[in-house]
Order: sequence, then C-alpha cells, then structure tokens
Amino acid sequence: MYVLDAKSKTPLHIQLYKAIKEDIIANYKVGDKLPSIRKVATLYNLSKNTVESAYAQLYAEGYVQSRAKSGYYVSELFFDSFRVEKETVPTSNAIPKAYRYDFFPAQLHREDFPLKTWKRLYTKVVTDEVDFGAYPDGQGELVLREQIAAYLRSSRGVVCSAEHIIITNGFIGAMELIAKLLKERYSDFAQEMPGYHIARKIFDAYGYTIHPVGVDAQGLKIEELKKTQAHIVYITPSHQYPTGVAMPIARRQQLIAHMQRISGVIIEDDYDSELAYYTRPIPSLQGLDGGSCVVYLGTFAKALSPAVRVGYMVVPEWIHTLYKESYDSHFSGVSITTQLTLAAFMQEGHWERHLRRMRTLNKKKHNAMKEAIVTHLGNSCKIIAEGGGLSLLIVPTKEGFSWQKLQVLAEQEGIVIYLAKERSGTAFEALRMGFGGFRLEEIDEAVRAFAKVWFMAYLA
Amino acid sequence: MYVLDAKSKTPLHIQLYKAIKEDIIANYKVGDKLPSIRKVATLYNLSKNTVESAYAQLYAEGYVQSRAKSGYYVSELFFDSFRVEKETVPTSNAIPKAYRYDFFPAQLHREDFPLKTWKRLYTKVVTDEVDFGAYPDGQGELVLREQIAAYLRSSRGVVCSAEHIIITNGFIGAMELIAKLLKERYSDFAQEMPGYHIARKIFDAYGYTIHPVGVDAQGLKIEELKKTQAHIVYITPSHQYPTGVAMPIARRQQLIAHMQRISGVIIEDDYDSELAYYTRPIPSLQGLDGGSCVVYLGTFAKALSPAVRVGYMVVPEWIHTLYKESYDSHFSGVSITTQLTLAAFMQEGHWERHLRRMRTLNKKKHNAMKEAIVTHLGNSCKIIAEGGGLSLLIVPTKEGFSWQKLQVLAEQEGIVIYLAKERSGTAFEALRMGFGGFRLEEIDEAVRAFAKVWFMAYLA
Repeated sequence: MYVLDAKSKTPLHIQLYKAIKEDIIANYKVGDKLPSIRKVATLYNLSKNTVESAYAQLYAEGYVQSRAKSGYYVSELFFDSFRVEKETVPTSNAIPKAYRYDFFPAQLHREDFPLKTWKRLYTKVVTDEVDFGAYPDGQGELVLREQIAAYLRSSRGVVCSAEHIIITNGFIGAMELIAKLLKERYSDFAQEMPGYHIARKIFDAYGYTIHPVGVDAQGLKIEELKKTQAHIVYITPSHQYPTGVAMPIARRQQLIAHMQRISGVIIEDDYDSELAYYTRPIPSLQGLDGGSCVVYLGTFAKALSPAVRVGYMVVPEWIHTLYKESYDSHFSGVSITTQLTLAAFMQEGHWERHLRRMRTLNKKKHNAMKEAIVTHLGNSCKIIAEGGGLSLLIVPTKEGFSWQKLQVLAEQEGIVIYLAKERSGTAFEALRMGFGGFRLEEIDEAVRAFAKVWFMAYLA
Repeated sequence: MYVLDAKSKTPLHIQLYKAIKEDIIANYKVGDKLPSIRKVATLYNLSKNTVESAYAQLYAEGYVQSRAKSGYYVSELFFDSFRVEKETVPTSNAIPKAYRYDFFPAQLHREDFPLKTWKRLYTKVVTDEVDFGAYPDGQGELVLREQIAAYLRSSRGVVCSAEHIIITNGFIGAMELIAKLLKERYSDFAQEMPGYHIARKIFDAYGYTIHPVGVDAQGLKIEELKKTQAHIVYITPSHQYPTGVAMPIARRQQLIAHMQRISGVIIEDDYDSELAYYTRPIPSLQGLDGGSCVVYLGTFAKALSPAVRVGYMVVPEWIHTLYKESYDSHFSGVSITTQLTLAAFMQEGHWERHLRRMRTLNKKKHNAMKEAIVTHLGNSCKIIAEGGGLSLLIVPTKEGFSWQKLQVLAEQEGIVIYLAKERSGTAFEALRMGFGGFRLEEIDEAVRAFAKVWFMAYLA
C-alpha cells in the first residue's frame, strides 16, 4: 500500500511515481506486470491522469515497458543497472567517500595537463584580447573555429571550413542543438545498441522515436538500420562505444549510400579517435561523404581536459543555414576566455605536440593496464576490447558471474568500477578498466587491489 | 515559379521552404493567404509530405500562421521584424562592419571588469585546486554553489541551500533543463507578451503549448493567466523584459496563490535585479513563496561579465529530486576553472564590492544617457522605462514613425540600434538605449550621433 499525501507540496503523480519505483526496486522481478492504471486510480482514489503521469515517468526512465493492449511490465533492459545503482550510489546528501582507486574510463590525470603553457596563454589572452563586457559569438569565436577546421582537415580528413563549425560545451550541447535543428524535418532516430545512452535520452526528450540498431564486429548493422524508419543515425565509427570496434571502410560506404538515398543525416561521434595506439585512425566518415549528410562531433575532453568543457560540431551547409535562421542571435555557452586560450594553444602548435605526448603516454598506460590484467586476473577474465581510448574492456570467463556482488565488494574496498551497461542502457555485460586517470606507475597496484574483490566475486 | 532541384543535396522540402520564405519577404503582405498544400504539391509534382514539411518550418519560424480549416496566412506578429532583418542583417559570409556606436543593451564595458583580481584568482585556483583531468560536478562545483546560496539568501531573500542550486551556462542552459525536467508532467507554458522570446522558443522546441499573457503597468496580468491551461509561467518580475515594470507585492501574492492552487511552477527570471538605481530591489518571488513552486534564475552576465557564461537556477526540492533521478550522471557545461575562480572571487568578498561599484557606475551611465536623450532628442521622444538595468526605453512622440527607416539610416552611419520587438517577438514598438557598453564619457557623443539619424527618420 502506497502512502500518498494530498496536502504535500509534492504533486500526487510524483509521490505515486516515487512509491511505485521504490516498490519495483524492492519487490518486483523483470517481466512482472504492474497493476492497471484504472485499478490504481480506483484503489487510491486518484484521477486516471495522475496515475498515467506516474506510469509515463516510470516508462520514460526505463523502469517499465509497455506492451500494446496489455499493460506495463517491469523492464528487462534497465532493471539490472537500476538495482545496482540503488545499492551503490550514495544519496546526494551523503558525504562522498574518498576512494582508493577509481577506474573511471573518461578521466585523465591532472598532471598530464599542460598547465604551465595554458596559464601563460590564458594570462596573455585575457590581458590583450578578451572583451569581458561582450557575449561570445553564437557559433564560437572565429579564431578557434579556424584552428579546429585546420586540425580536422589535416588530421581527420574532415571536409570543412570555420564557417561550418559550431563550438559547444561538449557532447550534450551539440546533440541538443542537432535535435532541435532537425526536429521539424525528421522524427525517427537510430543509434547503436549497445551505445552511449545519453544520445538516445536527448533525442527522446525532443519527441523523436528511438530505434536501437544492433552492433557486430564491424559496428552498426546496416541491414537492421534499413528496416527502421530512421532518417537520423548516431554512430561512433572510429571506436564504437562501448564495444570498441572500428567500422571498416566498406560498411562506412554502405552506411553513407543508404543515408544519402533517404536524404538522412549521420551523426558521427569521433570522441576519442586521437587515441589509437596500434592502428592509424580511419579517416572520418564525414570526409568520405564529402560533408553532405554527416554531422561530425569532436571534443577536447579525451586528450586535453574534460574540465574545460569544449567540444565542436561540423555541420553540412544546409544545416548551417537552418542554424543561422533560428539561432543566429543566440550566444555560445563556452566562455570567451576558454575559447581564446584554446585557440592560442592550437595556433602555437601546442595541441599537436600535446596530442603526440598523450598518445605515447596513454599507449604506455594502456599496455601497463593490459599487463596488469594478465598478471593479476589471469584466466579469470578475457580482454574483449583494447588498443584505443582510455580503457580496456574485460569479461569474466565464467557463467553466472554476479556483477552486482562485484560492485558491492569493490565499494567496500574503496574501489570504483564501471560497468559497460551503466552508460549504454543495455544488458551488455563487461567491465571498463579505465587507465587515463592513473599515473603510469599506479596502474599495477590498482589492478592488484581490484583483483582481490574480482576473485571474491568470481569464486562466490 | 520556384526553382527546385531534385538532384541537389539539399532536401526538396528545404529548397521549397527557402523559396517560399524569399517569396513571402519579397512579395507578400501581412494576412496574404499561401496557396494550399495540395495545390503546391500538384504544381511542383511533390509529395504532400514535402510541402507540409516546408509549411511546418515556415510556421515554426513564425512567417505564417495557420487558421483552422482555412489554410496558412502570412503572420502579422513576425513580419515586420523579418523584413527589417532582411535588409539589415549581414550574411554570415560578409565581413562584419566596424561600428562607431553600438547601443546593445546587454553589453558591459571591458574596462569595468575586475581583470587584475580575476587573473590573480585564476592563477591561484588552476595551480592549487583545479583537476584538469576530471569532469565537473553535474550540478556545479559545491564551493561555488555555497557562495551563490549565501549571496541569494542575504541579498535577494531566496530560500535555498547549495543543494538546490544548479550552475548553468546561463539562461538557455537553465531553461532547457527546466523544459526537460517538467515535460512529463506539464504541457502548457505561459509567458509575458511582450517578453523574452527565447524563453518561448525553448519550450516550444520541447513540444509545450505556448500561451502569451499580456502585461500592464504592474506586470503579468493574472486574470489573463488564469484563463489559460498553463501550469508553467515564465516571468521577469523585478524588471519586466522589455517594458521595465516591476511587479508589486500584491500581484506577486496573487500569482503565487494561483500557481500553488493549480500545483504549477513559476520560473522567476531575476536577470538584472542587482541593477536598480532608485529603488530597493523587491525581494524575490521565490522567497515569498518559500521555494515550493518557484524556480529562480540568476546570472553573472549583467553585473560581472557576459563573456564568462555562468548562470544558476534554484529549484524546489521536488524538482531537485527529478533532476537527480534523470541527470545525476551528466556533467556541468561550465568549466571547472571558471567555477572555482568565481567561487574564490565571491569568497574573498570581491563580488559584493564589485556589485556596489557597478551599481554606482551604471547609475551614472544611466543618468548620462537620460540627460543625453533629453538634450539631443528633446520632445521627439518619450522615455517609457528607466531606473534599472542596462538600458532606457524610448518611443517617438509621433504617429507613423518608421522604425525600418531608422534602422537603415543608423546602419549607414555605423550605429547599431536595438528595437524592443526584436527579442520579444511582438509588435511592442520601442527602442532600447543601452548604456552598459559605453564609457561614461562616450554616452553624450553616441546619443548626439544617433540624434542625427533619429531626426532624419522622425521628419521623413
């Protein structure tokens, strides 16, 4: 029986939503049917609207799935991760623990940042260039866009000029903008599954219908994509998130041919293509397509710093026109100081040098992580993705391994671990062994400490 | 006859949309009816869907209005401003002109920024505190939230703690987040008309139905609001945008009573309440309500710098809960460096001192602008809003004054002027005489130069 308070300042549908959510987490199994909307409305003397709102929220957050003419059922896809979250995520009032080891796969080590150069350039630009009284250009400062365009043309084969670049606060800002610009034209959005779940969430919030499309050893399955209604597809072709596969050229060409035929749009997220340790990075899809149907996304978060919050997108001419028509009077969300400092950093050649340094350093960290995994975990796990980015992916060589148990044990030992499914919204079962946030010499001891809890879960 | 190219990379519906738009601007009058969708489809051998997409875009951008069972008509609301834009806005490829005088009402003068202190604090925090390898906290860095909470409690009577504050890149970031958080619960959004048109645009993009509500000498008309279905209302009670009126306490209480009764949400945008020159600022609506149904928005753009891109919102507990449930794993779009520098700036007392200085300085600029208007424009205009913010509002004392002519003439003389309707999306006819971007001693000569084109338009 849920306790609802009609006099509370929290609306009834939210009270109900919370109560059902807690009930699901505590008492339901995957596939269990929820009581009908009518039944709950009668039982608690609520309007049908109130109950519908509560169910809609549970649905939107993935707790339940709806089956046509049948009702709501506890979702398979999301249940595991929510259960895990419930047990391990501290509440917002809790004081965060000091962790001994954090395997966060998108972290860099603070000492790897070129602080001295950055400080010098910041002081220079705020003294000589920045107008603190002005708003930034909506598309981003021209000098920075020119630097990025030159870099992308030479290093990633992207066909672009400064005119086609929009500076953003990173991934979310870029995706929100695309979702808005294209929503009058398209209504169906496809993405890799498993894939980066925030992409889906953003397009869902703008009312797009979401089509998950499977991934095999060559990335997104084109035939499966063709069966959907999707005119927009979000992909990570250089280094598929989270499986790590790279899409070969033949499939890239198939994808482009299909999307050109249906006048659709490919969103190419090239988030960490700079960090390939054993292969030459495959040139961008955008370059292959000539820039007509691809929106290209990049970021400075993976190789320079996630703290500075700068990313960018390259858009085709016709999307740029839409942008100017609707958003010409908007201001960029990225501070002028950061933009001009970064522009100077690139202009003086520091970015290219820093990239080479980070590639060498992260390759060493990658190899140290691999060696430590082999040494300390031995045959209990298999490495299923390696060679790029800031993490390796491992899976246990055992059926029925309890990820939940592993997380609880790790938490107790002050070790933070990251399951691939947490940010991919699927049942993709693997562990992301991030190495970017460690010093090179810390990696072995971190994995050794982790091995202790790993084997406790493994042998349980 | 429109020329459409089926082989172009630009989709047909976009080609059509552009062609019709140009046609409207060049050849249509307000109220003219567009040909029916069926007719255009037949004429150009296009699918009905293609034509519908083109019309939907014209509708979304405000070029046309639809009347039930009748068709599409050229819109009254937007036509004037679009016509003006067409003639005066440079295309994106054009080289921007160097303007002699810019009356932009949201600009500050670069010399008014506390650069020396800011540089010192930046250097300190990036050396000692910032982890360039980490992502920022999604809600914003705790130290900054604590500083903002303390400031809002003491200066604006806002009921809050750091827990309820979310740091954003400014207005757009804040409004997007609210639109997303509330969209499962509410579907109808009201705002002042005239009012800040970007607010409406953001909620429109998330599928809300928009209800414009009139404004009188006490601000938003509550009785008119009550007649709408709106459960969310966006207002600027301290200094209504763009009319400049302040909402008195009695109406504030009526508004709160109504929104509490319907379990709705008030979005209080307190964008420049710090800059009141002749009255004590009225305490926030949020404080009056006790923080139960008000989302409070503030910014550092109007008194510190629009270039640093930092704003914040204060949300009620139940909205904070929704936020944590959906966005706990997101990262803030504001760089850690900016956040920590600003926190140190506030912590050392510079913010309060700077505010006092800016209030004094801007009061002088405000008075200089007023005096220059009286001196140089005399009886040809009337000041309809003054006493706060970064601009005064004037209207001509003559019927049939051509704003369009004024803009063309000003452009020719290298003077940038800002009509109130440009960012308020209505026929509200007034000119915003911004003074924040000038040095105090420049104001008289700027208005003198402006007077020349003003009288040319006035006497035409």
